[in-house]
Amino acid sequence: MALWSDGIDGDVLSELDWSIREEVIEALPEAVVAEAVRELDTDDVVDILEDLEPEGQERILEALADADRVAVEQALSYPEESAGRLMQREVVVAPEHWTVGEAIDFLRGAESLPDQFYHVILTDPRMKPMGYVTLGRILSSRRDVALRTITEDGFRTVSATDPEGNVAYMFNQYHLISCPVVDAGGRLVGVITIDDAMNVLDEEHEEDMLLLAGVGEESSIADGVWDTVKARLPWLAINLVTASLSAVVITQFEHTIAALVALAALMPIVASTGGIAGTQSLAVAVRGLATRDLTQANAARVVRREVLSGLMNGLALAVLLGTVGSLIFGDWHLGLVLGLAMIVNQVVASLGGVLVPLGLSKMGLDPALASGTFVTTLTDVMGFFAFLGLATVMLI
Amino acid sequence: MALWSDGIDGDVLSELDWSIREEVIEALPEAVVAEAVRELDTDDVVDILEDLEPEGQERILEALADADRVAVEQALSYPEESAGRLMQREVVVAPEHWTVGEAIDFLRGAESLPDQFYHVILTDPRMKPMGYVTLGRILSSRRDVALRTITEDGFRTVSATDPEGNVAYMFNQYHLISCPVVDAGGRLVGVITIDDAMNVLDEEHEEDMLLLAGVGEESSIADGVWDTVKARLPWLAINLVTASLSAVVITQFEHTIAALVALAALMPIVASTGGIAGTQSLAVAVRGLATRDLTQANAARVVRREVLSGLMNGLALAVLLGTVGSLIFGDWHLGLVLGLAMIVNQVVASLGGVLVPLGLSKMGLDPALASGTFVTTLTDVMGFFAFLGLATVMLI
Repeated sequence: MALWSDGIDGDVLSELDWSIREEVIEALPEAVVAEAVRELDTDDVVDILEDLEPEGQERILEALADADRVAVEQALSYPEESAGRLMQREVVVAPEHWTVGEAIDFLRGAESLPDQFYHVILTDPRMKPMGYVTLGRILSSRRDVALRTITEDGFRTVSATDPEGNVAYMFNQYHLISCPVVDAGGRLVGVITIDDAMNVLDEEHEEDMLLLAGVGEESSIADGVWDTVKARLPWLAINLVTASLSAVVITQFEHTIAALVALAALMPIVASTGGIAGTQSLAVAVRGLATRDLTQANAARVVRREVLSGLMNGLALAVLLGTVGSLIFGDWHLGLVLGLAMIVNQVVASLGGVLVPLGLSKMGLDPALASGTFVTTLTDVMGFFAFLGLATVMLI
Repeated sequence: MALWSDGIDGDVLSELDWSIREEVIEALPEAVVAEAVRELDTDDVVDILEDLEPEGQERILEALADADRVAVEQALSYPEESAGRLMQREVVVAPEHWTVGEAIDFLRGAESLPDQFYHVILTDPRMKPMGYVTLGRILSSRRDVALRTITEDGFRTVSATDPEGNVAYMFNQYHLISCPVVDAGGRLVGVITIDDAMNVLDEEHEEDMLLLAGVGEESSIADGVWDTVKARLPWLAINLVTASLSAVVITQFEHTIAALVALAALMPIVASTGGIAGTQSLAVAVRGLATRDLTQANAARVVRREVLSGLMNGLALAVLLGTVGSLIFGDWHLGLVLGLAMIVNQVVASLGGVLVPLGLSKMGLDPALASGTFVTTLTDVMGFFAFLGLATVMLI
């Protein structure tokens, strides 16, 4: 980087993975960074600044032109992960009474336009967005057509304080290409384009997947050993504690195991199959919450579905395991215990897989947050308890 | 639906979840469906047809205008989940020698234009795409400017047979808004827009998440009990078999357990913590493969990272568990066995979490395909084996 630093493209900084961007920016001479960021749209500058320390932010802000600095500082004043942080300030607007011809003449005369824009936003005199017209419609209409007669149906705006997750959901749901952002007074302050929304969607998926697995949400394949340990060890330590619950449960049945050691060999089957069932139910529920197909309104139906399918899966597995167990050990009582424990644990697993994320979501937490750890702890404990408890009653 | 069926909007059919779309289409009178699909762009018609039975496809194809039918049939001739299926045939092209004025006049005179378009694609006389111009550039340029002087940098095309996953990756990586599709001869046959690419990206994430959890990739929160059982039971049955491996391993150590029943209570701790570590490593690896940050080129480095961080996590957990175990059971030999087994299983887990998806990917399979089941089986078996094996050697 040092060798190549005379004149770096701002887009290069913008595309760098955040995990190395700070290092790169610190390694570059101030003047080079200043020159690089000056060409970027404000959303990209904000994106770069967000991850920097305050001193680094200052250095870059000072390098910007006055108007840009004000715009970036204002964007940074919005909450993290909000629409205000995501938007670019560069918008193409037209008064709502303009014609196609006036819009084209204005665009031809404009000194600087955003890198990418897909709509002209119509505003009233107080900068309140009233609708937008696609560039395709403008290009294919006659010069004397009034812009307000060719606006798109289903015009939507987002508030600058809306969470970026909601914005990404809206883009995906309504096939938006760009969306105006308004402040608390309903005035236009910026626009979010679909490439940014796609990026957010991608990041949210990444978070879901990593949180489900109990890894820090910023883990990446590029992390070093130390970052990897830092991201994973806390969850492993928590799991050490929760797994000890299983040990405590099993300890209560030491006499049973001492009387029939084969139980120790069989008990992980019930626990492990429960763990898989819980993970299955969990994945579908977390996905459903992310796409908003699972809501408090249909939660009861989904919970009932989970219980019933847990019961049916449990019955099928119980017949399989119970029969094989009875044959191998020549003891149909043992087969019955295996089967019954399997049914109980499958129902608990399916239920836990949907209730844990629903509960986390109701508490305002991310439904994926380490729910894998919770659910497998539940299925382990329940699997051992049901199996050893039934064995104590029916076999000993 | 039946009540409301006189005149349904094609977009409604297009937006319906595929799981109920077939039912809805069968419930509607033929004439209504025919009328509805006629207004759609070809990519949406293809999307609807893909999920229907051959007879249903025929009915809709017959309803289309001749030109549209040919276009849709041609799209269906491309492999499933390819760029050819995803693209729309409606493209806006201009000869490469045109000026801005000629393009605007052409667009104003055009009888029908696609619902959404963001670029005018320049082609040579043999319909080979040479570059594209954004509508923003056309609108902001003078009429006498030659289109070829204002084309975008970094022009890319995809082949109609490219997998849709590659296309979505390209859109995300290069911030594309639309991308021309060419046939084997390099001729323009259609265009893919970002909303379709975003959709693919979303579906791929869903697949990864569901496959990792061992659920059929088409599971959804809307499924009934029966579909849920069908999607989950096969993986549960497979897990029943793999979990029996653990039982076989434990059976080898029945004498050890009979001699010291506390071992039965402690062994799930080592196995469970290994399962979590494997899941963590797996999630990061599957994500890395999806974003193409993990490749065969850097696999060795990532594997080394996993082994080292597994070792460090193992050491930390070993100290914790070993100390507590020694104190509770008043036997430092037992603590040592717990600690050593933990280290072994953490290393195996981290390694398995990255090698299983890498292996699946090398075999041309989806790296997320039930890899969760494989990895937890591995960590269960290894956890029980290491713990009971060491206990047999050091305690009995």
